[in-house]
Amino acid sequence: MVTVDLNCDMGESFGAYQIGHDEALLNYVTSVNIACGFHAGDPIIMGKTVALAVEKGITIGAHPGFPDLSGFGRRNMQVSLEEAKAYMIYQIGALQGFIKVHGGKLHHVKPHGALYNMAAKDYSLAKALAEAVKAVDNELIFVGLANSMMIKAAEEVGIKSAQEVFADRNYQEDGSLVPRSLPNAMIHDDQICVDRVIKMVKEESVMTVNQEKINIKADTICLHGDHPSALLFAKKLHRALLEENIKLNSVT
Amino acid sequence: MVTVDLNCDMGESFGAYQIGHDEALLNYVTSVNIACGFHAGDPIIMGKTVALAVEKGITIGAHPGFPDLSGFGRRNMQVSLEEAKAYMIYQIGALQGFIKVHGGKLHHVKPHGALYNMAAKDYSLAKALAEAVKAVDNELIFVGLANSMMIKAAEEVGIKSAQEVFADRNYQEDGSLVPRSLPNAMIHDDQICVDRVIKMVKEESVMTVNQEKINIKADTICLHGDHPSALLFAKKLHRALLEENIKLNSVT
Amino acid sequence: MVTVDLNCDMGESFGAYQIGHDEALLNYVTSVNIACGFHAGDPIIMGKTVALAVEKGITIGAHPGFPDLSGFGRRNMQVSLEEAKAYMIYQIGALQGFIKVHGGKLHHVKPHGALYNMAAKDYSLAKALAEAVKAVDNELIFVGLANSMMIKAAEEVGIKSAQEVFADRNYQEDGSLVPRSLPNAMIHDDQICVDRVIKMVKEESVMTVNQEKINIKADTICLHGDHPSALLFAKKLHRALLEENIKLNSVT
Amino acid sequence: MVTVDLNCDMGESFGAYQIGHDEALLNYVTSVNIACGFHAGDPIIMGKTVALAVEKGITIGAHPGFPDLSGFGRRNMQVSLEEAKAYMIYQIGALQGFIKVHGGKLHHVKPHGALYNMAAKDYSLAKALAEAVKAVDNELIFVGLANSMMIKAAEEVGIKSAQEVFADRNYQEDGSLVPRSLPNAMIHDDQICVDRVIKMVKEESVMTVNQEKINIKADTICLHGDHPSALLFAKKLHRALLEENIKLNSVT
Repeated sequence: MVTVDLNCDMGESFGAYQIGHDEALLNYVTSVNIACGFHAGDPIIMGKTVALAVEKGITIGAHPGFPDLSGFGRRNMQVSLEEAKAYMIYQIGALQGFIKVHGGKLHHVKPHGALYNMAAKDYSLAKALAEAVKAVDNELIFVGLANSMMIKAAEEVGIKSAQEVFADRNYQEDGSLVPRSLPNAMIHDDQICVDRVIKMVKEESVMTVNQEKINIKADTICLHGDHPSALLFAKKLHRALLEENIKLNSVT
Repeated sequence: MVTVDLNCDMGESFGAYQIGHDEALLNYVTSVNIACGFHAGDPIIMGKTVALAVEKGITIGAHPGFPDLSGFGRRNMQVSLEEAKAYMIYQIGALQGFIKVHGGKLHHVKPHGALYNMAAKDYSLAKALAEAVKAVDNELIFVGLANSMMIKAAEEVGIKSAQEVFADRNYQEDGSLVPRSLPNAMIHDDQICVDRVIKMVKEESVMTVNQEKINIKADTICLHGDHPSALLFAKKLHRALLEENIKLNSVT
Repeated sequence: MVTVDLNCDMGESFGAYQIGHDEALLNYVTSVNIACGFHAGDPIIMGKTVALAVEKGITIGAHPGFPDLSGFGRRNMQVSLEEAKAYMIYQIGALQGFIKVHGGKLHHVKPHGALYNMAAKDYSLAKALAEAVKAVDNELIFVGLANSMMIKAAEEVGIKSAQEVFADRNYQEDGSLVPRSLPNAMIHDDQICVDRVIKMVKEESVMTVNQEKINIKADTICLHGDHPSALLFAKKLHRALLEENIKLNSVT
Repeated sequence: MVTVDLNCDMGESFGAYQIGHDEALLNYVTSVNIACGFHAGDPIIMGKTVALAVEKGITIGAHPGFPDLSGFGRRNMQVSLEEAKAYMIYQIGALQGFIKVHGGKLHHVKPHGALYNMAAKDYSLAKALAEAVKAVDNELIFVGLANSMMIKAAEEVGIKSAQEVFADRNYQEDGSLVPRSLPNAMIHDDQICVDRVIKMVKEESVMTVNQEKINIKADTICLHGDHPSALLFAKKLHRALLEENIKLNSVT
């Protein structure tokens, strides 16, 4: 039986600022990536989010990002490899503090935003991030863009990885995503998104933006949590996957 | 044989900003309290400081503070007990990340600056901090001002504590420090400081600012690291303690 | 004809985080207090908010707060008087940058949150804030809690002040607000709030929480913008004031 | 008579952290660029630095940088043009607040670190920065790398510019600096540095790293303030320029 993980970024509120639909989304995902206070999240939110995930039995990952709260971690920053590693260790450790308190277990690490996008293309950065993950706990799974440098780096460094796919993004021939700056980066039709995901999971392939078929392995599917229709789409995709006899489970 | 710990705050540099004489002081102390990125320190500094302490075999403690870099954590902030606990958990966890990477073991937690001073007097805050320490790891030692609410709270919460004394500060009858705002808060003569410390360690008493003798237990002595003469005084005190056959060792 | 100002805090979003109903509220207020990046707001938001206020012809004030984004400026911080002044000057100046660009004029300064509440009770802090306002521009109006130390300080320092009243808060005999920690701090019935405001404006008095009548001068009424019913209440109060032949205008 | 400006970055301390030799350097420079709180500096430091410059009669410029205190503004950040402009306006405005208080006048704006380096090469960014400067005050002088996009942008936007040269850096044929990542980026011999500067000022040319002569206009010379020998070099260059009958004065 085919298995896939449904993941969602979570705990991205900050102080008085609310963002996302965390509690409702928890009903549809099998794992969460919890913000660690650099690009989003704060200690109070982190504690609450960990407690909620533990209570609901959802698999917990860390979601470290650049130290750029005002840019929500979405802006490229030319940090050194040493800085990138230290930022990972700090944020993973901080999240583990709350996990110790609330009784769960850290399962994976998925870099956020610009850190993720840069590492997907830059092998040396990807390797630094994978090394940081391994140094903290060599059983952690490194979640990265399918077919990207992150997957290659995890293999080289000797830790497990999970290949992530996006339901609503178009792919290029080399397996990378069509950049958001281009007009056809996004797929806006929910049904097409659902069909694509099922195909990726069952047939391990996807049609690129130029209608070529490329191989892709979907270990985990990213659900975005911060736009209004996120919840509706999560529900729809969740149901469709179950109807296709695809088992939903976190990556092992 | 009488034993005492010599501790020093460390890793308080930030980015391009250097503060303290960390490497040199490591030759005279038996334990360090490493800043965790809120009032001082950053992930790069934390990693380097942990690595250095591990290499030299110095006992490592966390030194969490208020989220107030521009005030160096020295300004009182009216955070809620929930916030105070979450700030502790976050910072202790972050430091533990680096300890996992570099191979040491976290031994104690000593709150910094205004957080320390407020907790010394406010039992409910002290209890919240002690609970946070216990929730992360119930073998951690909670370092607090001798005779203060922090020591009482650790006992109530059921974790070990260490009573801290200051070589260069005058004491009041109730065991509290003469506030820095008063003229005789500080003792400026190095020899008097050394003599006082030896008396505190060996006789478990100290003369207050009003020349009354009060009981005090000195588990650990705080060396300040950020003023120019810190190193000289550390060397002097270190030698004097050894000459008095006082054993220097971290608190057990 | 009696005149009163209706003010609202604005521009409190930050980066990806949205808060408040800024555009809609602008239809009902005569002045706004724009966050300056310390407790809320960022340079992008500040520019947009200033541009919007200028376009709609709404009077602009600065709304400086403590450097405490994660606490939204609502937590007391024991800053020095020198720090308080410098924080005011910095934030007022930053807002004036955007006002120069968009063509408006800075009219008043209203401290935010804990800075406001502390200054209302602490004369030396209130005086420091008033001095900072005067030092930047001696024609600025200092907006403070009616009957508080802020009004007294403005007079002493020699700048204009505006006395602010709250529609939904109970008052104590000395003119101060019932603290939020007490059960009857807030008035929840919209009609009672409206009636109280009209009485404050027209009769310059208010019934305290203990049913005593005290004098109060209402130069400006604070509308809260961040809770869901804010807009409805603004509309209601706006209409009621006009029906009572009270002129709505910013403080002169 | 040939005139040149000697400028130095200043006010880059932060909270408890001291950096630079501000007071001593003020004896040798004709203008300063004051950090504005994003990459360095804080409101207290800004006030003190402005007061000092006003007292000594030194020309004052703003030195805005990226919002990256932990990286001292030296790391490239992919901010949008809108963000870059808003960051400029905010920081220039904040500094102007202190200038109003202390009685000086803002004369120029020189972007800091990575913002400067990126703008030197990226015309659209340079133009955005120049537009921000003009929008705040169209009499401000935009200080940029000699021969760079910043100078071109100022001309296009219609504001005055000043061409900045570096005493201790090697140049490439296109007038750009040899990147710091290359081995011969820096010139370490003080006397060679001094001789080069004099040649740049008097002959408006410099020898590139490949020993070709290129044209360069030196309106202002940058003195670095944060390394130990800064003061000695400042003194030496200052004396040498006067001996060559070069007049030291800020750019007009």
